[in-house]
Amino acid sequence: MALEDYLEGFEQRDKTVFARAITLVESNAETDRNIAQELIRRLLPRTGESIRLGFTGIPGAGKSTLIDTLGFSLCEQGHHIAVLAIDPSSQLSGGSILGDKTRMERLVRHPNAFIRPSPSGGVLGGVARKSRETLLLCEAFGYDVVFVETVGVGQSETTVHSMVDCFILLMIAGAGDELQGIKKGIVELADIIVINKADGENLLRAKAFEREMRNVLHVLSPASRGWKVPTALCSALGGEGIRELWDHVSRYIALRKEQGVFLKNRHQQSLEWLHALIGEYLRRQFYHHPAIKESLTHLTEEMAAGRTTATSALQTLIALYETKT
Amino acid sequence: MALEDYLEGFEQRDKTVFARAITLVESNAETDRNIAQELIRRLLPRTGESIRLGFTGIPGAGKSTLIDTLGFSLCEQGHHIAVLAIDPSSQLSGGSILGDKTRMERLVRHPNAFIRPSPSGGVLGGVARKSRETLLLCEAFGYDVVFVETVGVGQSETTVHSMVDCFILLMIAGAGDELQGIKKGIVELADIIVINKADGENLLRAKAFEREMRNVLHVLSPASRGWKVPTALCSALGGEGIRELWDHVSRYIALRKEQGVFLKNRHQQSLEWLHALIGEYLRRQFYHHPAIKESLTHLTEEMAAGRTTATSALQTLIALYETKT
Repeated sequence: MALEDYLEGFEQRDKTVFARAITLVESNAETDRNIAQELIRRLLPRTGESIRLGFTGIPGAGKSTLIDTLGFSLCEQGHHIAVLAIDPSSQLSGGSILGDKTRMERLVRHPNAFIRPSPSGGVLGGVARKSRETLLLCEAFGYDVVFVETVGVGQSETTVHSMVDCFILLMIAGAGDELQGIKKGIVELADIIVINKADGENLLRAKAFEREMRNVLHVLSPASRGWKVPTALCSALGGEGIRELWDHVSRYIALRKEQGVFLKNRHQQSLEWLHALIGEYLRRQFYHHPAIKESLTHLTEEMAAGRTTATSALQTLIALYETKT
Repeated sequence: MALEDYLEGFEQRDKTVFARAITLVESNAETDRNIAQELIRRLLPRTGESIRLGFTGIPGAGKSTLIDTLGFSLCEQGHHIAVLAIDPSSQLSGGSILGDKTRMERLVRHPNAFIRPSPSGGVLGGVARKSRETLLLCEAFGYDVVFVETVGVGQSETTVHSMVDCFILLMIAGAGDELQGIKKGIVELADIIVINKADGENLLRAKAFEREMRNVLHVLSPASRGWKVPTALCSALGGEGIRELWDHVSRYIALRKEQGVFLKNRHQQSLEWLHALIGEYLRRQFYHHPAIKESLTHLTEEMAAGRTTATSALQTLIALYETKT
């Protein structure tokens, strides 16, 4: 398929073309990459009208069920919902893909919804690159709310945070007091905190936990200026609190637009991403250098034995790198 | 002075030689740098018997007074205390140097104490490099407890955290609920939290704030495995709580040694530092490249205007970088 065919397909809202475009973006073949880049560049003016929501929380917090319930309700109201997952381990496990789709039972059958499992990119950088580009395709195709979900316990929380407009942390009561396996600093990134599974005999515990979280939030700095991070008790299963959650999201997005930081934040995210990509490229060049690899192993041992310092080791490595390149 | 003279001076615990060694390490001249590196390499076997304590907290939390009181009491018990400050803005302000020394009134006059203001390194990387090396000199000279203090509101918290064995966060009650200007995620890095200025009519507020912090700590993950982050009410001025604080430190260090992670953590810190230095070097090479600079300005504008993506911009930059080098 040529570039113009893709563009035509997007114009016509042809789902087959859309699916092929995503395959193109996720491809590792160089020729595909080139068309994909051009396609995205051409589609860029059509993006930007959407809301990007990030969801994180430990496995078992009920992310998929919440997305299913919230997404279905938004679809019924006329929204078009895309769900993307970011799972750096997807190549290894392979399991989360089917798992996610089946756990979003209602959403998966709705004509307004599109669910895309995590691309397998090997490393987080690769997965994130593909997801960011898929996200742009979704927006250009007309999905106006995009959910980006972290899958598994990994390093993907900050990656998801850096590609969304609003970052939602799902917690559940009684998952132990070690912040339930969530990476350090993630609570402070959250714009909205959902206490999920607040139903049945769990309701009281959820309420107590919400009070605890409010104490925490009282002390921590909010992620965004002028925004008091709200907590929302939800039962994704029963649907309670889902409407309030969406109100929080709408209120947050409205505030950000009012403050003039909504688009600014997206530009900032793109720029930071560019610099992250540059850093990744530079490190790859350096560390994959055979002489560096060998010398680094030796120097690491010397440092561990207390025979050399980081500064000395750096001097050696730089001398090596500069003569070899 | 030749290398052997420095080593001899360290052997004799000659304070004049010690001071000159620090000047050497802080020097930006290339010849000095070379002797300094060799000196540190030779002194490395003498380091490692010390305890490195990091102190952070907003200006006004009473860091200097606390260090003065705790340091003086340790000196009186026969310890040798070195105090280093890390202030990336020191070149600009120039003020903190005198300020610090005069605020540590008692410690500055004690023969067992050594106080070194922040080196001016221009950038945080430069300041941190010098401070890390000064720290090694202090240890080799026989200072068995080294305090490293963040100065001013800056980016230095994580830098200090990455060079100490135990990281102490100073807070005060009633400094507003936005975590008192402390950078995101810092609370979760703390091994011990001090609620300072818990005296006079402030005592009740301090106690209430301590309860609040305990709630927070209950939910956040502790920085170290097997360690429940304690809070300590202190009055640096009156000396209350200082002994308990030192007990917490001793207990923490003992635990870390028992777990076999004390030295492992130091090696890890050195390695991470090496990789940070490598990253800094690589970025400098890249971003200072005139063609890259020019192109980056243009590409940034294109991205802001929504005419290109980070991935496309990266491709352009890499092509440029690889033909020019």
